Amino acid sequence: MTAASLVSSTLCFGCKVNQYRHQSKALGGLEAVFSVITPPEVDVEQSKPTPVVYYLSGLTCTDQNFIQKAGACRAAARLNLIIVAPDTSPRGAGIPGEDDSYDFGTGAGFYLNATEEPYRSHYRMYAYVVEELPEVVRELFPSPTGQRLCSITGHSMGGHGALVCALRNPGKYRSVSAFAPIAHPTACPWGQKAFRGYLGSVEAGRVYDATCLVQDASIVKACNLDDILIDQGTADQFWREGQLRADDFVSAARDAGQKVTLRMQEGYDHSYFFVSTFIDDHLEFHAARLRRL
Amino acid sequence: MTAASLVSSTLCFGCKVNQYRHQSKALGGLEAVFSVITPPEVDVEQSKPTPVVYYLSGLTCTDQNFIQKAGACRAAARLNLIIVAPDTSPRGAGIPGEDDSYDFGTGAGFYLNATEEPYRSHYRMYAYVVEELPEVVRELFPSPTGQRLCSITGHSMGGHGALVCALRNPGKYRSVSAFAPIAHPTACPWGQKAFRGYLGSVEAGRVYDATCLVQDASIVKACNLDDILIDQGTADQFWREGQLRADDFVSAARDAGQKVTLRMQEGYDHSYFFVSTFIDDHLEFHAARLRRL
Repeated sequence: MTAASLVSSTLCFGCKVNQYRHQSKALGGLEAVFSVITPPEVDVEQSKPTPVVYYLSGLTCTDQNFIQKAGACRAAARLNLIIVAPDTSPRGAGIPGEDDSYDFGTGAGFYLNATEEPYRSHYRMYAYVVEELPEVVRELFPSPTGQRLCSITGHSMGGHGALVCALRNPGKYRSVSAFAPIAHPTACPWGQKAFRGYLGSVEAGRVYDATCLVQDASIVKACNLDDILIDQGTADQFWREGQLRADDFVSAARDAGQKVTLRMQEGYDHSYFFVSTFIDDHLEFHAARLRRL
Repeated sequence: MTAASLVSSTLCFGCKVNQYRHQSKALGGLEAVFSVITPPEVDVEQSKPTPVVYYLSGLTCTDQNFIQKAGACRAAARLNLIIVAPDTSPRGAGIPGEDDSYDFGTGAGFYLNATEEPYRSHYRMYAYVVEELPEVVRELFPSPTGQRLCSITGHSMGGHGALVCALRNPGKYRSVSAFAPIAHPTACPWGQKAFRGYLGSVEAGRVYDATCLVQDASIVKACNLDDILIDQGTADQFWREGQLRADDFVSAARDAGQKVTLRMQEGYDHSYFFVSTFIDDHLEFHAARLRRL
C-alpha cells in the first residue's frame, strides 16, 4: 500500500472536501481515487475519535457524484462524521470492452472480487472497500484517542455493496443503510450480468447477494444490527423494472429475524435529488449507532 | 412568446424540480431552457402568492449546475419560495467561434443586450431575464391571489447579472444578493472582453456595470434596497486574480448611500461547494424582504 496523495481540497459547510489518489494493491496496482469529507472537529479531536461512514456509489458514478450532489457536508459537520466515498470500479485496467457498457466493467465494479479472467486481477472492489481503503484512511487520519468506529451506506449498486459489506463482516460496521439498493442481484438483470461476467455464474453471486446473505440466521445473529434503514422512491424507474427489489430483502430479513425499516418515498426517483433529500436521515441513523456505547 | 413545455420533472425535499423549454423571442427565436423549483405549498396557494427568486449562473454553466449542486430545495420548501434558474447564454445561435472561449459566447452571455454584430440578434440575456422569462413564469404559475413578488441573486457572472438587473429596474426586485459576483466588470479582464465583443467598447459596458450603476445616488434612491448581501470566499482564485472586485462595489455603494453586507468567507473557493454552504442565508435574506409589508 502506498500513501494517498491529495488531488484537490475545498471547503463546504466548514468541512474539508478532499480528493486523494493512491496506487491500489487490491485493484492490481492501478491508481485509485477517493474523496473524504472531514468535519471541522476532526482537527481538534478530544477523547472520542470521529467515526467514519463509507458511502458507496452506483452504476456509472465516480466519487464525485455523491460529493457534488448529495449535500452531505451540512450533516457531516453537525453530526461530526467523516465520510469516505470511493470510486465504483478500477479505472484503466486495459481490458478490451470494459468501457462498452454502463452496467458492467468501468463504473460498474459491483463491490465484489472477480474470479474470472480477464477481470480477476483488477476488479476487486470488495477487497478495496473492506480492507485496503480503511487502512489508507487510518493512515490519512490517525486518531490519537482510539480506533475509529465505522458504518456504511450507498446508493443503488452501492446500496447493494453496503448491505453485502456489512453482512459479510459481522462487527466491522456499526450500522448499515441503503438508498434504492440492488437488494437481490441474483434475481435481476443487472446483478445476473455482473455475476456471470465477474464470477462465472449467477449462482456464484449468492455470496454477494444481500437477500441470500440475510436469509442466514447465523449471519444475522453475528451481525447484531438493531435495524437496517432503506429508502426507496416510488417513481424510481429501476424499481419499477424490477432491478432493485428491496421487498425481497425485507421479507428474507424478516424470516431470519433481522429488522429492516423500508421507507417507500412517494414520488421520488433514482437520482441524487432523492439521495440528497434523505441523506441527513441516513447520517443521523448512523451517528446514533456510532455514538452508542 | 410561445408557451413553455416540460422537459423533465423530479422531486427533491418535497419540491418539484422541473426543466422547461420554449422558443425565446428575446433570444431571436432560439430555443431556451430554464429550471424551476416549486415548493409544495404552490399547489395550494392561499391568500398570498408564493414569491419568486431568480438565480443567475456563472460562466460555463447551464441551468443545471445550480439545480444539481446548490442544494437549494431544502430552503425553498421551508421558506416557500419558487426559484427560477435560466441558462447563461443563447444556445445554437450559429455564430462562428461562439463556442471557442469559456468566457465569451456560449455559456457567457453576461446578462446584457448585445449591440454589435454578429451578436445583437441573439445575445440578449438581459431582455430575456428581465422581461421575457417573468412572463413565461407568470404563464406557467398563474397566481389566483395576486401578483408574485420577486427577488434576484446569482453567482459570479450571474452575481453581476443579479446586481445589474436590480439596479437598472427600481421596484422590480424586492431584494438582491450575490455570490462572488463580477462586481466591477469594466475593470476586469472578463468584463472588458465581454463588453468589447458584445457592445463594441469597455466604455459602453458602464450601463451593465454594478459598480458604475451604484455610484449614481438617484439609482440608489429609486431602488430603495435596505441592504445588498454579498458573499465572497477568500480562497477564490478569481477573487485573487482581480476578476470579481466586490470591494469596488462596496466602496462605490457606500459613497452613494447604499448599504451592502459583504461577508468574506474564510477558506471558501469559487465553486458550488461555496454556493451550497451559503444559499440558505441568501434565500432567507430574500424571503424576509419578500414577505415584509
